Amino acid sequence: MPKINIETAPVRTACMYPPPYDAQCAGRSKISLGDLGHLSQFGVNLTPLSPGAASAHQHWHKHEDELVYVIEGEVMLVEDDGETLLRAGDAATFKAGVENGHMLVNRSDQEVVFLEVGTRGEKDVCTYTDPDVDMQLVNGGEGWKPFHKNGEPY
Amino acid sequence: MPKINIETAPVRTACMYPPPYDAQCAGRSKISLGDLGHLSQFGVNLTPLSPGAASAHQHWHKHEDELVYVIEGEVMLVEDDGETLLRAGDAATFKAGVENGHMLVNRSDQEVVFLEVGTRGEKDVCTYTDPDVDMQLVNGGEGWKPFHKNGEPY
Repeated sequence: MPKINIETAPVRTACMYPPPYDAQCAGRSKISLGDLGHLSQFGVNLTPLSPGAASAHQHWHKHEDELVYVIEGEVMLVEDDGETLLRAGDAATFKAGVENGHMLVNRSDQEVVFLEVGTRGEKDVCTYTDPDVDMQLVNGGEGWKPFHKNGEPY
Repeated sequence: MPKINIETAPVRTACMYPPPYDAQCAGRSKISLGDLGHLSQFGVNLTPLSPGAASAHQHWHKHEDELVYVIEGEVMLVEDDGETLLRAGDAATFKAGVENGHMLVNRSDQEVVFLEVGTRGEKDVCTYTDPDVDMQLVNGGEGWKPFHKNGEPY
């Protein structure tokens, strides 16, 4: 049966950011619905964020589209050019190649739960727009790897 | 801003099935969140189904992964090999090439709302497994077109 048993699904808290940037992942977890259903073309994560937690560092993807849909609670969408409150039932899209770094931050006192959808392309580059974050992630075809912004590997 | 204004978004009720199969689309509507956000790699539809309505005829995709997530209400997942009730918070996946026809049917007395996610591939074939449905949909690279099961176009 293709139904995902979410109650018994593994919850992923691992973070691919190197220190000290991995501290941004505290309070974030993911249930990878698409992976659990053996999908390979896109990922769909059910992502709870605790109060004070962030989804990521502000970033944009060169090749992969993204979409988020808020299931419960509310969360601030923080972009390079401003902030937008997203409430349950709201959706936002991030088209590949649009150079506007984004992240979701839970500034409320309740957990927020959202779905995040992203393409699973063969290659991609994830650029972090915060000048204090000296990191980029590159998927050259064998999975994501972290690099400094000058191209040196971590 | 990448937030989708769902309240003012166009609601799509068009059905690409030829008569008499288009009757299956009654009571179904879609808000195409991904299209509204100009995404091209996958589609995400917010799909309300009225009591008695179905999402589609039972089908499977040759090349495109699919995932559904129930936002509110409950809906019966009807497959060639059985039925599974999906409630709010449940998800199900349909991997490309798995020859098990599926559709969602609202047998409750309340509207159900779900998200459906599907890859936007260049080419695909959608096969309908109900022997009473003499239809297949083929996207040869220029959009979906309906054919009889013997290959003759509608």
